[in-house]
Amino acid sequence: MTDSTPQLVYFFGLGRADGTAAMKDVLGGKGAGLAEMTNLGIPVPPGFTIPTSLCIAYLESHQFPPRLRSQVEHALQRMETATGRVFGGTARPLLVSVRSGAALSMPGMMETILNLGLNDTTVAGLATESGNPAFAWDSYRRFVQMFGSVVFDVPKHHFERLLEERKSARSVGRDSDLPVEDFQGLVHDFKALIRHETGKPFPDQPTDQLWGAIAAVFESWNTRRAIDYRKLHDIPDTLGTAVNVVTMVFGNMGDDSGTGVAFTRNPSTGEHQLYGEYLLNAQGEDVVSGARTPEPISTLNDRMPEAYSELERVCRTLERHFRDVQDVEFTIERRKLYLLQTRRAQRSGHAAVRISCEMVEEGLISEEEAVARIPPHDLDQLLHPTIDPAAKLDLLTSGLPASPGAASGAVVFDADRAEEQGRRGEPVILVRRETSPEDFHGMVAAKAILTARGGMTSHAAVVARGMGKPCVAGAQDLSVEEGSQRFSVNGRMVAQGEWITVDGSTGRVFAGRAGLKPPAIGGHFDKLLSWADRFRHLRVRVNADTPADAHKGRDFGAEGIGLCRTEHMFGTVGDPRLPIFRQVILAAPQARAAQLALIDAEKEASEARGKAKRAAEETVKEAKAALKSPEVRPYFEGLKKLLTGQRRDFESIFKAMDGLPVTIRLLDPPLHEFLPSSKELELAMATPTLKASKDVLREFGGKRGTEKVLREVLALEENNPMLGLRGCRLGILYPDIYRTQVQAIIEAACNVKKRGGDPHVEIMVPLVATREELTAVAADVREVAEQVLGQRKMELPYLVGTMIELPRAALAADEIAEDADFFSFGTNDLTQTAFGFSRDDVEGKFLARYLEEKILPMNPFESLDERGVGDLVLTACQKGRKTKEDLKLGICGEHGGDPSSVHFFHNAGLDYVSCSPYRVPLARLAAAQAVLGEAETASK
Amino acid sequence: MTDSTPQLVYFFGLGRADGTAAMKDVLGGKGAGLAEMTNLGIPVPPGFTIPTSLCIAYLESHQFPPRLRSQVEHALQRMETATGRVFGGTARPLLVSVRSGAALSMPGMMETILNLGLNDTTVAGLATESGNPAFAWDSYRRFVQMFGSVVFDVPKHHFERLLEERKSARSVGRDSDLPVEDFQGLVHDFKALIRHETGKPFPDQPTDQLWGAIAAVFESWNTRRAIDYRKLHDIPDTLGTAVNVVTMVFGNMGDDSGTGVAFTRNPSTGEHQLYGEYLLNAQGEDVVSGARTPEPISTLNDRMPEAYSELERVCRTLERHFRDVQDVEFTIERRKLYLLQTRRAQRSGHAAVRISCEMVEEGLISEEEAVARIPPHDLDQLLHPTIDPAAKLDLLTSGLPASPGAASGAVVFDADRAEEQGRRGEPVILVRRETSPEDFHGMVAAKAILTARGGMTSHAAVVARGMGKPCVAGAQDLSVEEGSQRFSVNGRMVAQGEWITVDGSTGRVFAGRAGLKPPAIGGHFDKLLSWADRFRHLRVRVNADTPADAHKGRDFGAEGIGLCRTEHMFGTVGDPRLPIFRQVILAAPQARAAQLALIDAEKEASEARGKAKRAAEETVKEAKAALKSPEVRPYFEGLKKLLTGQRRDFESIFKAMDGLPVTIRLLDPPLHEFLPSSKELELAMATPTLKASKDVLREFGGKRGTEKVLREVLALEENNPMLGLRGCRLGILYPDIYRTQVQAIIEAACNVKKRGGDPHVEIMVPLVATREELTAVAADVREVAEQVLGQRKMELPYLVGTMIELPRAALAADEIAEDADFFSFGTNDLTQTAFGFSRDDVEGKFLARYLEEKILPMNPFESLDERGVGDLVLTACQKGRKTKEDLKLGICGEHGGDPSSVHFFHNAGLDYVSCSPYRVPLARLAAAQAVLGEAETASK
Repeated sequence: MTDSTPQLVYFFGLGRADGTAAMKDVLGGKGAGLAEMTNLGIPVPPGFTIPTSLCIAYLESHQFPPRLRSQVEHALQRMETATGRVFGGTARPLLVSVRSGAALSMPGMMETILNLGLNDTTVAGLATESGNPAFAWDSYRRFVQMFGSVVFDVPKHHFERLLEERKSARSVGRDSDLPVEDFQGLVHDFKALIRHETGKPFPDQPTDQLWGAIAAVFESWNTRRAIDYRKLHDIPDTLGTAVNVVTMVFGNMGDDSGTGVAFTRNPSTGEHQLYGEYLLNAQGEDVVSGARTPEPISTLNDRMPEAYSELERVCRTLERHFRDVQDVEFTIERRKLYLLQTRRAQRSGHAAVRISCEMVEEGLISEEEAVARIPPHDLDQLLHPTIDPAAKLDLLTSGLPASPGAASGAVVFDADRAEEQGRRGEPVILVRRETSPEDFHGMVAAKAILTARGGMTSHAAVVARGMGKPCVAGAQDLSVEEGSQRFSVNGRMVAQGEWITVDGSTGRVFAGRAGLKPPAIGGHFDKLLSWADRFRHLRVRVNADTPADAHKGRDFGAEGIGLCRTEHMFGTVGDPRLPIFRQVILAAPQARAAQLALIDAEKEASEARGKAKRAAEETVKEAKAALKSPEVRPYFEGLKKLLTGQRRDFESIFKAMDGLPVTIRLLDPPLHEFLPSSKELELAMATPTLKASKDVLREFGGKRGTEKVLREVLALEENNPMLGLRGCRLGILYPDIYRTQVQAIIEAACNVKKRGGDPHVEIMVPLVATREELTAVAADVREVAEQVLGQRKMELPYLVGTMIELPRAALAADEIAEDADFFSFGTNDLTQTAFGFSRDDVEGKFLARYLEEKILPMNPFESLDERGVGDLVLTACQKGRKTKEDLKLGICGEHGGDPSSVHFFHNAGLDYVSCSPYRVPLARLAAAQAVLGEAETASK
Repeated sequence: MTDSTPQLVYFFGLGRADGTAAMKDVLGGKGAGLAEMTNLGIPVPPGFTIPTSLCIAYLESHQFPPRLRSQVEHALQRMETATGRVFGGTARPLLVSVRSGAALSMPGMMETILNLGLNDTTVAGLATESGNPAFAWDSYRRFVQMFGSVVFDVPKHHFERLLEERKSARSVGRDSDLPVEDFQGLVHDFKALIRHETGKPFPDQPTDQLWGAIAAVFESWNTRRAIDYRKLHDIPDTLGTAVNVVTMVFGNMGDDSGTGVAFTRNPSTGEHQLYGEYLLNAQGEDVVSGARTPEPISTLNDRMPEAYSELERVCRTLERHFRDVQDVEFTIERRKLYLLQTRRAQRSGHAAVRISCEMVEEGLISEEEAVARIPPHDLDQLLHPTIDPAAKLDLLTSGLPASPGAASGAVVFDADRAEEQGRRGEPVILVRRETSPEDFHGMVAAKAILTARGGMTSHAAVVARGMGKPCVAGAQDLSVEEGSQRFSVNGRMVAQGEWITVDGSTGRVFAGRAGLKPPAIGGHFDKLLSWADRFRHLRVRVNADTPADAHKGRDFGAEGIGLCRTEHMFGTVGDPRLPIFRQVILAAPQARAAQLALIDAEKEASEARGKAKRAAEETVKEAKAALKSPEVRPYFEGLKKLLTGQRRDFESIFKAMDGLPVTIRLLDPPLHEFLPSSKELELAMATPTLKASKDVLREFGGKRGTEKVLREVLALEENNPMLGLRGCRLGILYPDIYRTQVQAIIEAACNVKKRGGDPHVEIMVPLVATREELTAVAADVREVAEQVLGQRKMELPYLVGTMIELPRAALAADEIAEDADFFSFGTNDLTQTAFGFSRDDVEGKFLARYLEEKILPMNPFESLDERGVGDLVLTACQKGRKTKEDLKLGICGEHGGDPSSVHFFHNAGLDYVSCSPYRVPLARLAAAQAVLGEAETASK
């Protein structure tokens, strides 16, 4: 090769290779591995690789570059020299395999042709050389079959039918039991078949065969299934595949030959011993096809101890060289071992963690490397039960892997029944078209949730992840007939009470009860995360609304609560607090009007003189009376009751998080969410005789009462509740609600402290858009807090901060920081408002299509949109810290548990991320990887 | 005064003053005017001013600064020297007035005391000097009365009662007809009243009187009404008022004396001649109180020609000096003219325009100054009928000035009746609690709209402004009883058919039919705007959806259409197109699914070979059949019909805007807005026997049809439609809708061009959040456009651009600009998403409170929030132009017609603003003022 010619072919053989392991992009994974093994002195049959760049060029022009032919010929000559064989030779013919190999693994997606170089002449040479004509003709038959289907696109089943006819005529079970005449007959038949189907003759010249095969491998980059696979795995279409042309070695030359695959460690458990399987007297495709059952690798030691120990030696060398577990393909030809492929082994989460830890113990890798190379999502498997890899499975359907873990149970279709059976200790799986807040108690009782509709952030998915329960969402083939208590899927019916198994980690749903493996936290898991904790800068908190979640978060290593939502403290359906809060809401407008009237009148009275003063004092009296009227009284009484209940809630949360910060968000959702909808009320009033209507009318005091509630509901209902009267806007319009919450928080903290506890209180104001909003609410918060502390004569540090969840707030963060001790980014709402996406609506209506058509590269509610939303986060960080250098910055919301988003938050200089309990370990690991800067590479 | 003492008193008299006109902030408007006049040699009684800064200091400490007393004494001595009088002297006593005067005018808000310095001794001196004891004692009586009410806070009506008793005992009508003994008796009675009410004696020492009065004037800065006034007019509380102490001159010394007010030109019409009124033998308060009817100023020429010509001379001097119309107060004491005040005259919009133009003609000011000093909103008065200033008015109530202009008509309460009576040519005013889109036809028919609820951007307000019809919105005292066909307001009932007059410029509503003045465009109006056009850089376009609006906009000087909304082209209630579009919407999901299936199948078929190809071809056939199925057919048929209709619409719009650019926005609202709501349908199905239900069921094909529509509606309905499936998202999910629109646009343009027209087409894609969205839609747009042009064999330049109305789009504007020929800022939606404010919800629920509590300085939907939303606009401009230097930038939406926002857009470097037709002249003027940079000063 002269310097002026671009290198179009990379040779390997005779202990030297043109390429190296680092040249994956050029040579593909397989080609780079073969080159590296050759350089390491590992026995690899000689061959060459045509680089990936030629694939794309070929697909555009359907022509090979001018110099390729001569370079390929040159490489073939070197192979002939190395092997002492001749391509197309009558004696000792050189046969080759032609295989694809892209930079990123696309297993089974592209084409392979074996035994290329055989024709009616060379087959005789092979027969003579091997002393086994049946083997030679079988190899020839296989080649024609593969070439016919790969290069000529003749459907495979045509070849199989002809083969089956021969086998049944001879009454033999295995291909290899056919006599040589049958293989000869098949070669003839296959060639005829090809000519019949395509009108073209089968090429007898080995060179023609080779170029046909190279073209076919390139073409296979663009088959539908390859394109779909790349789309699914985000592999760029522009990478292209390399072509590897390798000297054939034969595992099917008799019982002193064989072929197999091996892992340098167990990829499922991580156990440190050779793992794999092989077949004697077989070619690689026999292992893959499953026609014969391979034997475990350990038995090879008995059959061919030298080959086995050579394999062990090679594997050790490879693992030491690559410093990682390898997955190899090998062939033994007449007791001589050849390696045909090596690559980084895929492994289960369990194995990944164990292997990393043990490699650190063995001194093979550093703790940093161990931490850096675990894809954070792999930890999911260790946190939840998983399906036993040995289990026999009967797949029903699959959906989105919405919440990880596996569970089995009896199918139920409604929340009440789920709760009832759950209470009796029966494991149940709640199956719904989609879930809503009314299903909550059923979700609590169920072992897992399965829905036919909804995405990764549907109600079912979010709630299930929050509870750490397996969930498969949006299983579209599922047709749930809630009325008749059954579902149908892909033509099968599953009735209530039948058992199914749901695997929320993969999205698959199985009939019956699959064996499960328990979660595997502790041990290696803890060790790995303790290393991660040493490296990371970001703190990790948990989003927890209950003491149970707080405890769970702490168990997983959370360093505080980053988001304690208080909405449920005001009551959910069936909760005795709900009617109390409803009475507060319904009386609030009058109460507030009376309060404002009193303030006005008192001011007037203090300023006026003489008779005007007396008149104003009269108005004050009236306003005071109005505050005690029967319409207004329920407001204050209700708030008092809510105070008691919330204080109790906060006490137990502070106790659970003793010594660690707890960020409590004041009430956020719009008030009408706590009331029935106007539609519900209007329907009830229109059809008072229906059962459901009667219930509603009873609840709200008959027709007149319901009418009153309806009026209130209509006044409160909103066209776009997301953008309406919620968050701090409530705190400004109805200050008593927030004031009651703050009183409950500070009193609870005082109580806990008095009993020796150490509460760290952080009060968070939601949905701030302008500095003035925060100023107003924070003044209220501090006033109430100081009042309580004054009464109790106690000291208690507490912080007052705000969510940054509106673009306006991010842009005015410098002003807002003046009144804030901390910012917590609400990236969910920030995403909603920056994009103008209502998450509920968007995910149900067009997000899937957007992802499919690549309008969006990812779901921005799962992984932070760095371009837009991230820009706002960075702006707010910068502006906030410009005002207050030590402003505490955090993020709460789904993105806090998303590894790539965690990287972003690390780079943005945040102090902490907060996420749901089961995401805490992931976030700890991702935070460490953000420091180590290697995670992205490692997770590939 | 030595240099080391701060100047606490500013003297004026003897032709020299310490202050000047430029010292308004220090001396208040009145003080600065008195000083300037003194310096100009205009006869002003000598006096001094205590500066505004002392007011705030006094209100904090309730103490006067140490040096003030001595400086006041010194100033009093200078007044004594100048007048030859003595403060508290028995002969020729010096009497003074004590008046407030802030930097910004707060008419009637603060206190005044006249004739100070009188007591039982000095009154005798005044009686002797004037030779008129009745005058002297009347002056004394007036002083005690004023001092009692201002300094001692004794309610005014007590004094008035005592005065009335005297008058009725004497049977006289006018105060001045009382005999001297009665004035003496009143002085005694008033003093006794004060002592009785307050327990304090009346101060007889003139010095005590003076300090009491000064303190009272300072205190009057903080009365409730003054605070409320400042809040309403955005005057800072920290300004404070000055105190002016001025030598009394008496207009009530007989028929050779008098007092009055004059304008240097007519403030209502702008006519260039002295305008005003006066009373002979009276003090200023008599003019104000209305007890006697003043005479027109022109008659003064007959009574006292010298004084009149002196006044004329003074007025000329002042106008030339200040280069603006002045409003003066004067007093004639025994034929000698004194000026007591001068200030810039308030004037009507009509007057402002005429005066500015005429002053340019007179060479008094430049064209730039003329343009710069007209507050843009003043033009509103010229564009609409106004209430005749001479009309006798009976005020019913007032609300928000939601859309300018005045109209009278009979009250009607529903849209149908409005339409019916309107058709008969009867002028009607539509009165509603609030309006909704169903009222549209009624609004079209009405002369004006009055609502009890809703803000400046409520449905009623926005629609009325769009139509240029007067509207008063949110008249909160109004209680509309639509059922009983009447409204009550402040205790009065107004029934259907009674006449009222609505003044949308001021927000006032009158009973009966007031005289109206027609609009006054043309003449001075045109001249002024033609000057404005010479100065401005920003182009001004109109938001117009119909040819009528396009014409109106053009008449007002619009240079194209900046926003042509196309929603109504798909049909509104009662429109025959609505059922067609409904059929399209209902068939769209199946149609789209069939289309996608066909695309998939065709791709499969083109790639597969052999039998697989044949199978795929079968699928293609099936998919094609599905596209012609009875479920899908209405979709294509409907689109075809809509195409024809829209093409016609666009043709007439292009014709109306011939030669000027027309920006057409593709369909924006969510599809469910074109369907009945699920609530409506569910109620109809629950109560099928009700009349309203029957109508619904009939419309949708009975129970089964309605059920089907209900399912579709439920699938389409959204929790937050603002943030849902609308805008370009529709264009991506249902491309045919946009494609049909584009076809209609380009075909219409071709038709118009063929007939000799000159259409300038700009197609605008709404609600883009990411570059990929625009890329996808713009590709569709260009493909269809090229198709049409190819078929027609025509050439037609057209632009494809996008709205920037989401924060995400503003942040990614550099990317988005790659595919856009222009950006148009949708600042309404940008405000909604930046703040997280749903305009409908926010304005109804809490915006008023936010403005009241100063959480927001202004309604961000009326005046651009520069801090947040403006930041996004600037970012997008900068990023967009970084990608494309010549990117065309505009803004459409309410802010385009708001003067202060126009300034912002000018500074941001936009190419044009677009606003509703009646805002176009305002925008032209504001755009010029933005260049001249003086408008802000001028509008104060």
